[in-house]
Amino acid sequence: MRNLTMLTDLYQLTMMYGYFKHGMENNEAVFDLFFRKTRENSAYAVMAGLESVINYINNLHFANEDIECLRSLELFDEDFFNKLRTMRFTGELYAMPEGTIVFPHEPLLRIKAPIMQAQLIETALLNIVNHQTNIATKASRVVYAANGDAVLEFGLRRAQGPDAGIYGARAAIIGGCVATSNVYTGQMFHIAVRGTQAHSWVMSFKDELTAFRAYAKVFPKTCMLLVDTYDTLRSGIPNAIKVFQELREQGHEPVGVRLDSGDLAYLSKKAREMLDDSGFEKAKIFASSDLDETIIRDLKLQGAQIDVWGVGTRLITSDDHPALGGVYKLAAEIINGIMVPKIKRSDNPEKITNPGYKKVYRLYKKKNGKAIADLITLQHETIDPEKPLRIFDSIQTWKSMVLTDFTYRELLVPVYLEGKQVYNPPPIEEIQEYAKKELASMWDEYKRLLNPHVYKVDLSDSLYDLKQKLLREHVDGDLA
Amino acid sequence: MRNLTMLTDLYQLTMMYGYFKHGMENNEAVFDLFFRKTRENSAYAVMAGLESVINYINNLHFANEDIECLRSLELFDEDFFNKLRTMRFTGELYAMPEGTIVFPHEPLLRIKAPIMQAQLIETALLNIVNHQTNIATKASRVVYAANGDAVLEFGLRRAQGPDAGIYGARAAIIGGCVATSNVYTGQMFHIAVRGTQAHSWVMSFKDELTAFRAYAKVFPKTCMLLVDTYDTLRSGIPNAIKVFQELREQGHEPVGVRLDSGDLAYLSKKAREMLDDSGFEKAKIFASSDLDETIIRDLKLQGAQIDVWGVGTRLITSDDHPALGGVYKLAAEIINGIMVPKIKRSDNPEKITNPGYKKVYRLYKKKNGKAIADLITLQHETIDPEKPLRIFDSIQTWKSMVLTDFTYRELLVPVYLEGKQVYNPPPIEEIQEYAKKELASMWDEYKRLLNPHVYKVDLSDSLYDLKQKLLREHVDGDLA
Repeated sequence: MRNLTMLTDLYQLTMMYGYFKHGMENNEAVFDLFFRKTRENSAYAVMAGLESVINYINNLHFANEDIECLRSLELFDEDFFNKLRTMRFTGELYAMPEGTIVFPHEPLLRIKAPIMQAQLIETALLNIVNHQTNIATKASRVVYAANGDAVLEFGLRRAQGPDAGIYGARAAIIGGCVATSNVYTGQMFHIAVRGTQAHSWVMSFKDELTAFRAYAKVFPKTCMLLVDTYDTLRSGIPNAIKVFQELREQGHEPVGVRLDSGDLAYLSKKAREMLDDSGFEKAKIFASSDLDETIIRDLKLQGAQIDVWGVGTRLITSDDHPALGGVYKLAAEIINGIMVPKIKRSDNPEKITNPGYKKVYRLYKKKNGKAIADLITLQHETIDPEKPLRIFDSIQTWKSMVLTDFTYRELLVPVYLEGKQVYNPPPIEEIQEYAKKELASMWDEYKRLLNPHVYKVDLSDSLYDLKQKLLREHVDGDLA
Repeated sequence: MRNLTMLTDLYQLTMMYGYFKHGMENNEAVFDLFFRKTRENSAYAVMAGLESVINYINNLHFANEDIECLRSLELFDEDFFNKLRTMRFTGELYAMPEGTIVFPHEPLLRIKAPIMQAQLIETALLNIVNHQTNIATKASRVVYAANGDAVLEFGLRRAQGPDAGIYGARAAIIGGCVATSNVYTGQMFHIAVRGTQAHSWVMSFKDELTAFRAYAKVFPKTCMLLVDTYDTLRSGIPNAIKVFQELREQGHEPVGVRLDSGDLAYLSKKAREMLDDSGFEKAKIFASSDLDETIIRDLKLQGAQIDVWGVGTRLITSDDHPALGGVYKLAAEIINGIMVPKIKRSDNPEKITNPGYKKVYRLYKKKNGKAIADLITLQHETIDPEKPLRIFDSIQTWKSMVLTDFTYRELLVPVYLEGKQVYNPPPIEEIQEYAKKELASMWDEYKRLLNPHVYKVDLSDSLYDLKQKLLREHVDGDLA
């Protein structure tokens, strides 16, 4: 397990030192980790990264060499180092489980801890959740576009470093991919791995037919052939069919062929015909080649005969939206045992934070189980599903609706209480299954790849009133 | 040191197994790692990642648990596992040193090794070099736009996982950033770290002035204040000036202020005036807020009074071009001791590979030391700078020029010979210095942020002829 304690911004340490020198080290603070907007054309995101967050926190400690490094900066004193040496996470962490469908302004993580600890962990928590949530979301879109076809994650070589490949592949599985090419991720998280051969295999034999035969000989039961090294339709597919016939004579059925270049709509339709005409109706057609959700949707619209989609660069980097933009904002301070809510103002109403110690409810229509809206409330608030519930938009406040016949659940679950881990991350297949159910509870209108409907995330009356009160009473200079 | 041996695509292992079962395990192959095109509006890239490649290769070995994991896939046999158990890198690796200015189609790495080894390492090599080269290049552009001002790397929280933050920050330093906020990177590579306080610091005190005073008290010698929490010009700057005056009375000069939102051109000019009018002409203005090379260029064009630029998300993710797109292609096979050049054809001339065991020369104008062109040649070719040298474009072959009064150097240096490391990565400050010199040897026309001039990468006569010959003699079906 890597010790990532030093994976933080220097300003966290200078602030920690400042709090320490001012005797504020035992002050507790509440921070929310949330994002302000989704990627363009996406209504939702898919929460991911909690397992990594837990590993990070469980391993949080300054080693001797870390202290030495900090000492060399000549910014801090020995008292502070003594404090750091014994520092462990002793606070509370609530989180949305991985696979939860999440929306802007909702706390994905809520931390209540001594302020020094809460600052220290900010950077790593953001790094982890921003990355993994972003990739799980992208994968969810790609899988939606594939409309039931299997999607494989193939991006390791183009990922932004080893971790981006490793945890990105795991996030892709959460988002609905069925397997990855990444052997490391497969080993680490017990995820199915897939892969057959590259162009270099075909080029390493005197001709394509020889290369195909050589592969089939070694993998007669799992034979999948890459057919575009020379000429897909004139050479690749005919040679593959020849080898498939030889396999069948030996009692084996081939898995299929892979297209990796050219016009995938045209080539896949022609390849399908050729395979069918030769009696290989069950041989699958795999395709890869700079795919993403838009290209897959368009290829399917044109009737491409592709059964399995291998998606690389654009999924593993989320190339159209490489960073989620999550932030970590102070929501309250506990001063002498009293919770004092805090707000960050801004000219831009989207950037004003929601103050206080909060939780999130998801409200469902009872008769069909579909999600209606999320409601952010203060921690003490409860919901009575027997009574009608009025919810309203917190910016356009005249937009409101009254809910009856609804059910609800709380989205934040306890992960650490008084520094003790009280939540065990489920195995990846359970997370994937949960994410599927989460998506199924959302109307298709929220999943559309272009201009999806905006999902409602409202504030309770009490939270709304608190926010308005804090905005009015703020004394530090009015904003022009 | 992490063992990343399993950080590979499954198809590398299935191909390795295939070569092994066909008795081809001792065949040697030559692979080139290169990219086909630069990012939009960039003529060049900055090579980075070699130190990570060396660490990866030095640590390459299958541990027992790796073998167990592979056994569980039920694809391979015990003979193969015995082979893997003792497998180490025994081949040759040439590379362009980190910080080298590099261009499309040039081998950044050239590997000659038993084919099983060469396949195994493909994925990790691409992952590492694609990522780090891409970020170093982005940083180089940002630093170019800052035109001599210091640029700080601030992106860890938005990086695609820990490694993207850690190695991305190092790559940013190679590209010319002067420091990072990332403490882990600072520790690991002895890189300068920077940081002061966040909005949460200011919000944790009863008002802004109290927060500033509290910070100045703890860091009187390195006082830098974040002035945009409430209102930059009406509250932040006046409060900062008050605290700076108090500091000066105690004999300390402040470092400066940081702007993190709003219109940075307007705010920085006003802040400069206010600081100057109060006698703090030397206090620096730092700015951050979703910056990149285009925004920095435009802010400077408008006379923004910013001394130091903190660049986060858009640098650490290279958001406009999140993947370099490097590939790893078979260039030759050594069969019975004879080097057989290999070519990969394509409809698209840009995608046809350059065959053979090659090297790269950079040619410089003698009188001013400026680079003229790069020349890819076969390994045995030499250059005689006493004789005129004709070079020509390998696609538009009528475009040619004759060089006289030139000097040259070879860009690929030996890193491993017969599996032994023969190159020690220099310390990061040397790499940064080298990258600066490299850039200085390039005309400004190649560095322009929009529509830069295209740098010439030509093929020698012998390489060109070999390529044409292989294209003509290829037997596996003509391309339509």
